[in-house]
Amino acid sequence: MQEHLHTETSPFQKIDVIQTEGAGKILLLDDRAMLSEADEFIYHEVLSHIPMMVQKKTERVLIIGGGDGGVAREFSKYSEIKHIDLVEIDERVVRTVESFFPDLAVAFESPKVHLHFEDGFHFLLKCQDSYDIIIVDCTDPDGPAERLFKKEFFQLAYKHLSPEGILMSQSESPFFDNFGIQNIYQELKSVFPNVESLCAPMLVYPGGLWTFSFATKGLKGRELNQTRVQNQAHILSSLKWYNVDWHLGAFALSNFHRKALGFNHPELLQ
Amino acid sequence: MQEHLHTETSPFQKIDVIQTEGAGKILLLDDRAMLSEADEFIYHEVLSHIPMMVQKKTERVLIIGGGDGGVAREFSKYSEIKHIDLVEIDERVVRTVESFFPDLAVAFESPKVHLHFEDGFHFLLKCQDSYDIIIVDCTDPDGPAERLFKKEFFQLAYKHLSPEGILMSQSESPFFDNFGIQNIYQELKSVFPNVESLCAPMLVYPGGLWTFSFATKGLKGRELNQTRVQNQAHILSSLKWYNVDWHLGAFALSNFHRKALGFNHPELLQ
Repeated sequence: MQEHLHTETSPFQKIDVIQTEGAGKILLLDDRAMLSEADEFIYHEVLSHIPMMVQKKTERVLIIGGGDGGVAREFSKYSEIKHIDLVEIDERVVRTVESFFPDLAVAFESPKVHLHFEDGFHFLLKCQDSYDIIIVDCTDPDGPAERLFKKEFFQLAYKHLSPEGILMSQSESPFFDNFGIQNIYQELKSVFPNVESLCAPMLVYPGGLWTFSFATKGLKGRELNQTRVQNQAHILSSLKWYNVDWHLGAFALSNFHRKALGFNHPELLQ
Repeated sequence: MQEHLHTETSPFQKIDVIQTEGAGKILLLDDRAMLSEADEFIYHEVLSHIPMMVQKKTERVLIIGGGDGGVAREFSKYSEIKHIDLVEIDERVVRTVESFFPDLAVAFESPKVHLHFEDGFHFLLKCQDSYDIIIVDCTDPDGPAERLFKKEFFQLAYKHLSPEGILMSQSESPFFDNFGIQNIYQELKSVFPNVESLCAPMLVYPGGLWTFSFATKGLKGRELNQTRVQNQAHILSSLKWYNVDWHLGAFALSNFHRKALGFNHPELLQ
């Protein structure tokens, strides 16, 4: 049982909102589920608190895509973060979220969050600033988002990251690997000295399990900044999914995941 | 696109096999997907190699349910295991698997595997033997399997486990918790000194993420038997999902999972 609450075609894509029985409201872009009210917190907490609990100093964050506001909402919780640029190509996504997803739209009210309605690649190309964290929260790499998974973009991101900077990107499904997660991994590896993969469950994505990339100039995904973990305990204790124990476990890849990334001898990675 | 390959009604349930495009053949019991060829290895490797890599001595294994043969197939790989009792209430499940799932049916050819077509509770009630591992691989707790999730059954299992024995059970979904995973946890806790929960992705189960219980008289789920890990490296390196790094990560529960189990202060568990 479901109700179609909204449909429109923006200059970039078809945008729909449906009300479901099991997962609350679901936002669809070009008929693909982007998020559900029932589990959006997983995806958004993973993309934000994982880099935060590794990094030492975080003042400036860039979110490419992420027009639903979920990732920006999570970063806004940290008083230490002064500036969040959110670069969403499609303003209609933001407006739709404002109308139908109040728990996400709260991000747009934060004075730290600066909205830019333009192409993320172009934004970075002309950008003179540096960021501590860059998040790529975009659609599948078969549309406008395609070049956000290529070496040229990763080089641009690398250039705009501080020495202890972290790039995190959604990296598609290990089960229904239509877009080459091995290729994404290789493109990242050709630019960043350290590239790690992790995974988290996603109720509304095909296969129910999603991978993420964690790329840095040296910082390791499992080496937590224990001082920040302690100091931000008030934030961590309010989260619905993330905790540091889970964080460490998320980087422990199954043989299946390793094989999808192209590792031939999974046991060598222990 | 899918093809209906088989349907029958046994004395216990409706049994169907469908051919799908994305997940190979799927076995359904009473219209609920039990396994797919695409991901059955996850479930079966989790239920078998997790207890194996913790325990020191394993000679006798009891599988209650598991008529698809997947868990028995995994345990059969260990030469140290001498005897596997597989107690499946519905012989027609085994026969259907023999006809349609050759990769699973291979278990029934092992001379170690002893099939018993009867109720698992009754089997244990009259059983005089002891087991090192007892696996509960059954359907949802709203049919014949209901009492396999209750204290009375867990007491029976406890009695039939060796001092270093391990009970592992499928424990339903944390997202669509129709059967009370908190209640299962409490019933186990009322019998076993150590009860831990873990999770793994399941493509064809509702929500895509599944929980499992690990209950012992003292052994901890994250304390690996490193000698066995080394000695059985030839088995581990052939697995499609399981490795010991993933094993440790699977016990790292999200706040969501902890809350589903009834823990009020998730961060206290770090």
